[in-house]
Amino acid sequence: MMDLALKLNNTSDIPLHQQLYNELRQAILSGRLQCTQRMPSSRTLAKALAISRTTVLLSYEQLISEGYLRTVPASGTFVACELPDQLLQSPVLQPVASTPQSPIELSSYGATLATVELPELPDPGIVIHFDHCGKPALDEFPIHVWKRLFSRACSLGANMLDYPFDPLGYKPLREAISRYLLQSRAVQCNPDQVIVVSGSQQALDLLARLLLNRGDRIAVEDPGYVEARHVFQAQGAEVVSVPVDEAGIVIEVLSTSAPPVKLVYVTPSHQYPTAVVLSLARRLALLAWAQESGAMILEDDYDSEFRYDERPIPALQGLTVSNSVIYIGTFSKVLFPSLRIGYIVVPQQLAPVLGRAKWLSDRQSPLLEQRALADFINEGHLESHVRRMRMLYAQRRQTLAQAINQQLGNQATIMGDNAGLNMMVQFHTHLSDEEITDRAIQRGVQMHSIQRDCIKADSRGKFLLGYASLTPEKIEEGVSRLAKVFH
Amino acid sequence: MMDLALKLNNTSDIPLHQQLYNELRQAILSGRLQCTQRMPSSRTLAKALAISRTTVLLSYEQLISEGYLRTVPASGTFVACELPDQLLQSPVLQPVASTPQSPIELSSYGATLATVELPELPDPGIVIHFDHCGKPALDEFPIHVWKRLFSRACSLGANMLDYPFDPLGYKPLREAISRYLLQSRAVQCNPDQVIVVSGSQQALDLLARLLLNRGDRIAVEDPGYVEARHVFQAQGAEVVSVPVDEAGIVIEVLSTSAPPVKLVYVTPSHQYPTAVVLSLARRLALLAWAQESGAMILEDDYDSEFRYDERPIPALQGLTVSNSVIYIGTFSKVLFPSLRIGYIVVPQQLAPVLGRAKWLSDRQSPLLEQRALADFINEGHLESHVRRMRMLYAQRRQTLAQAINQQLGNQATIMGDNAGLNMMVQFHTHLSDEEITDRAIQRGVQMHSIQRDCIKADSRGKFLLGYASLTPEKIEEGVSRLAKVFH
Repeated sequence: MMDLALKLNNTSDIPLHQQLYNELRQAILSGRLQCTQRMPSSRTLAKALAISRTTVLLSYEQLISEGYLRTVPASGTFVACELPDQLLQSPVLQPVASTPQSPIELSSYGATLATVELPELPDPGIVIHFDHCGKPALDEFPIHVWKRLFSRACSLGANMLDYPFDPLGYKPLREAISRYLLQSRAVQCNPDQVIVVSGSQQALDLLARLLLNRGDRIAVEDPGYVEARHVFQAQGAEVVSVPVDEAGIVIEVLSTSAPPVKLVYVTPSHQYPTAVVLSLARRLALLAWAQESGAMILEDDYDSEFRYDERPIPALQGLTVSNSVIYIGTFSKVLFPSLRIGYIVVPQQLAPVLGRAKWLSDRQSPLLEQRALADFINEGHLESHVRRMRMLYAQRRQTLAQAINQQLGNQATIMGDNAGLNMMVQFHTHLSDEEITDRAIQRGVQMHSIQRDCIKADSRGKFLLGYASLTPEKIEEGVSRLAKVFH
Repeated sequence: MMDLALKLNNTSDIPLHQQLYNELRQAILSGRLQCTQRMPSSRTLAKALAISRTTVLLSYEQLISEGYLRTVPASGTFVACELPDQLLQSPVLQPVASTPQSPIELSSYGATLATVELPELPDPGIVIHFDHCGKPALDEFPIHVWKRLFSRACSLGANMLDYPFDPLGYKPLREAISRYLLQSRAVQCNPDQVIVVSGSQQALDLLARLLLNRGDRIAVEDPGYVEARHVFQAQGAEVVSVPVDEAGIVIEVLSTSAPPVKLVYVTPSHQYPTAVVLSLARRLALLAWAQESGAMILEDDYDSEFRYDERPIPALQGLTVSNSVIYIGTFSKVLFPSLRIGYIVVPQQLAPVLGRAKWLSDRQSPLLEQRALADFINEGHLESHVRRMRMLYAQRRQTLAQAINQQLGNQATIMGDNAGLNMMVQFHTHLSDEEITDRAIQRGVQMHSIQRDCIKADSRGKFLLGYASLTPEKIEEGVSRLAKVFH
């Protein structure tokens, strides 16, 4: 064994038994220790290397458990002949000769997707990202709390690692969500009407698949959330544009649409992108129309957590006892987007089939996260974080509004309500939207033109400025740079 | 302030500043501290409560950041008049009167789902769960390593919490997967052909949507994985049954199918549920047929990691340079099922549209997990865990085989290859499958009848026994109980 010259380093961060395991494994793989060779006893090797016998035993144990060594009772420990590395590696065979690659034929769904625009990597020349419209203040998220709750979830035993049994999602999380929604949004539901999904995008996709056949008509707000429209179009639905005014979606246009629509998709709390709030009168009119026509309402309660002036208007869902409203929400804005957890609240009769749709599409969302999130809500961290972010965002919004008023004066008008993570601004200028965008980029500022969000609506001069993730200093600098675009 | 009788407990686990925050918040919410009331200075309150001034400052800071207190420069700190709890709670309004709930009309997709069977909650009377066919030995998973890698991912900064930019998935994870697949499965791909998905179930769903129109024909193994069949049927495809013999799917039946099929779904490494391996000759014949007919092959490399006798046969994907193979894998079996991470390897031309499909369906899989998994692979934990589990499962399989031979003798035949997490057993008995199942349940043992996995194939007497998650003692006890069923 001495000949092996095992290298052990007492000052390394790697534990000694792991170092010894690595050295012995390499010796076996390289053939320095050969098949059927007998290993020295742990006592002998420990003495020779001047290390503790426990260290040797730990490394032997790992080598045995992984198949490099095998023990023969009353005889000793030997190098295995069939090494796991060989058994776990496929031989590489020469690929069969083949004709040139032919194009792959896509389904109608697949063919529709080809035109969907994907997000672009951020331009490194941009200093101020007003275009991150839905991005929260991520450096303010209490990540230490999240780490702790995730670790706790890991410690709850092997059941948390297993296949989930409940296709609606982890029950304690669904209970926490239904309590939270009742209190903060006046949503009326029991936990079995709540289904946990991977963000509001999956909510839209599952619902579109369950409710829309090719050719069915769905009404959307114009301007409206383009990523939702993509989902409906990919599903083969006919998208009907309905205008938005200062009180939200215009019900008369919706109700006179012919042929009638089957579904309407709305963002009542904070219309995207105009930031107007659907008034209570309109809410009641929308519900009455849905009842009369038999259409269903998809209520995407986008940005509902952040209002800076007054109490929120209750969700549509809680204003009716009919089954015409499906409610969608997400934790992307109140916690963080890469978490990928959202929820749908459905009329009771829809829950079993929605559970089956989730089950067939990806079984369930990851369980350790669901548990950590349930604890995060139940222990008050969610409410505390929302309260703190509400103060922070209100201040950032105020900074943005002041800077715009001071530096752009009557060249810009702030639109919509005092709410949300972003602000719609109407610029009064002879410049085209493309010219505004290009000039702003040259000054290191990017904004979101609402052009892509419009079907028939007039996007001219209208831009969305996300402020939630920017410090007051960045906001002020961004507006200073913008001001130069218009001078 | 003294009148408030703030309760602080020096021996509590809750930090003092958090206790003080809780007490003051309650005092404000209950009206004991009233709107515009001036708060004592931190020095005064600290002295009165005999606590440190830092403690008071920390709790004041939290109350200010959440909106319960506000500071007026050069004047002091006051109780806010608009409390966040009011501003964050929707008023509950009386729901509008409504006609009785009407049924909701589902799409064709939705209507198909109604017949999909969901998993049942485990029967508490079952002592030995041979029916957990795909469940790994979860108590052997190095959860402490996972915790550590997840915590590390949390510490990498706010970028890990943001919206992901790459719809194919976290690039370092895709790189790690492509290296792993080349080595262990001879899969030939670059990282931009790999797309990270939420388990193999989502892989099947996305691919079915992209490649199948209503009425398209897809061939499946019979018996075969019923959850895959459900996905294809829900998509409106016509499912064509192809028999499986000792060498895997029967190519002649496949190639003479009329009208021709567009896709075939296979599990070559360890056919589900028969456990046979698709022979190399059959693999080459399957590839030749696909090239000739223009059909595509969905290769679900189910259970490929665990073979106990010999080196694995290389994946179909690596045996061809054509674009006729799409490769699907998952970490559910090698790590843990509730993780929900799998992958698809596609011909280059299909990657952009698959990325769009993932983007529209749920944006991306959770990012912190993807990072932790990339580290888990790159630091050698995956290989080490697979080596260890291979030894463990081989032993459990041997225990099961011995127990069956000893206790059931010629009443049972073990089918298929020495591989995987489960074993197919053919019982020789006059009992029906239902009788076998019922009698086994009465003795506290549950097995998986392959009835649901069969279309035309004969399921009689064939059961799947999962052994990977059971200790040798449980396995022996389970077979003893089973033996009594047949005596």
